[in-house]
Amino acid sequence: MRIAILGTGVVGQTIGRRLVELGHTVTMGSRSATNEKATKWAEQVGAGASHSTFSGAATGADMVFNCTSGNVSLEALRAAGAENLAGKILVDVSNPLDFSHGMPPTLTVCNTDSIAEQIQRAFPDAKVVKTLNTMNAGVMVNPGLVPGEHDIFVSGNDASAKANVADLLRSFGWRNVIDLGDITSARGAEMILPIWLRLMGTLKTPHFNFHIARA
Amino acid sequence: MRIAILGTGVVGQTIGRRLVELGHTVTMGSRSATNEKATKWAEQVGAGASHSTFSGAATGADMVFNCTSGNVSLEALRAAGAENLAGKILVDVSNPLDFSHGMPPTLTVCNTDSIAEQIQRAFPDAKVVKTLNTMNAGVMVNPGLVPGEHDIFVSGNDASAKANVADLLRSFGWRNVIDLGDITSARGAEMILPIWLRLMGTLKTPHFNFHIARA
Repeated sequence: MRIAILGTGVVGQTIGRRLVELGHTVTMGSRSATNEKATKWAEQVGAGASHSTFSGAATGADMVFNCTSGNVSLEALRAAGAENLAGKILVDVSNPLDFSHGMPPTLTVCNTDSIAEQIQRAFPDAKVVKTLNTMNAGVMVNPGLVPGEHDIFVSGNDASAKANVADLLRSFGWRNVIDLGDITSARGAEMILPIWLRLMGTLKTPHFNFHIARA
Repeated sequence: MRIAILGTGVVGQTIGRRLVELGHTVTMGSRSATNEKATKWAEQVGAGASHSTFSGAATGADMVFNCTSGNVSLEALRAAGAENLAGKILVDVSNPLDFSHGMPPTLTVCNTDSIAEQIQRAFPDAKVVKTLNTMNAGVMVNPGLVPGEHDIFVSGNDASAKANVADLLRSFGWRNVIDLGDITSARGAEMILPIWLRLMGTLKTPHFNFHIARA
């Protein structure tokens, strides 16, 4: 698949690299076509990796990953262009973290709304699937970093888009993909960030993940 | 121990019964000394169980459990009396669920505050420990209802109060008690309710729980 990664941070770099390893063609999009981090990432990853603007990356892509910070995601996606997202699966990995009031961060949106819902409303022709936002970047693409059974969640309005994303997640190594429901269920997935952050402080490692133990 | 259970719902009834089984003396407190549910509960549980008003229950207790709904907890605790909570461990099991806008419920407080913090601020002489709010009532007192390893969280400002509560939780059968930090970490524990509610819908059972898989 041709995949656009929007965002040049650790999450985008990590997912992008993994997708190239799995044989996909990945373009990292950012505000500027000459973004230093995106340029360096594409050079390091090599064949199959390129970089462009947000819209340059999205226009040729079969699937788009939003790996920008939640507080700038809508702006980045507008730059990518609604016409370049229409009809495509838009995997939303973002978290609406607000560090402006110090640590631990709060969320810029929660409870009655979520960043995933805001994105789906702003881009009604995209098939938004929320996933991967509930664990460390390394664990996202290599669940074996955490021993034992543990789980990943998907939320979205389009069942076949969720099924396609679940297949991609299985190619990353995920065994337990839990479908939480429609895009409003992304509130739940985004609202576990505060306990995730506390757990990282308690456990002194980002290499942990939620498992839903059940009968 | 002499333990007060504030609240007559399923959570209070379930925890109260379990505490009596474990040899504690339990008084269920409610708005009225003649509350029908509390009367019936005390009759059914038998020796070791009694009922009273909020203040009647709290006054003679060594430890107090807040098992009221989060949206009436402060009012119930004021009725119990700050003087009857001072110096005592106050185990807060409540969730600030708001069903007034339909299902799924939202939270009446979250993100920058929590019901546990509100309680600690309102009753600064009580030793508030948030716990047990992240699972079904049956699982709270009988973790074996869910197979495999799974976890319970505690939050609070007083380390020895948390240690005492952890001991009590171990007497319920809990093996993994995770200390999230001070009382502000209760935000995280309360904010996982939305995903818990979605998971109950997806899994079609309340008998599941979070496990933190880790290296």
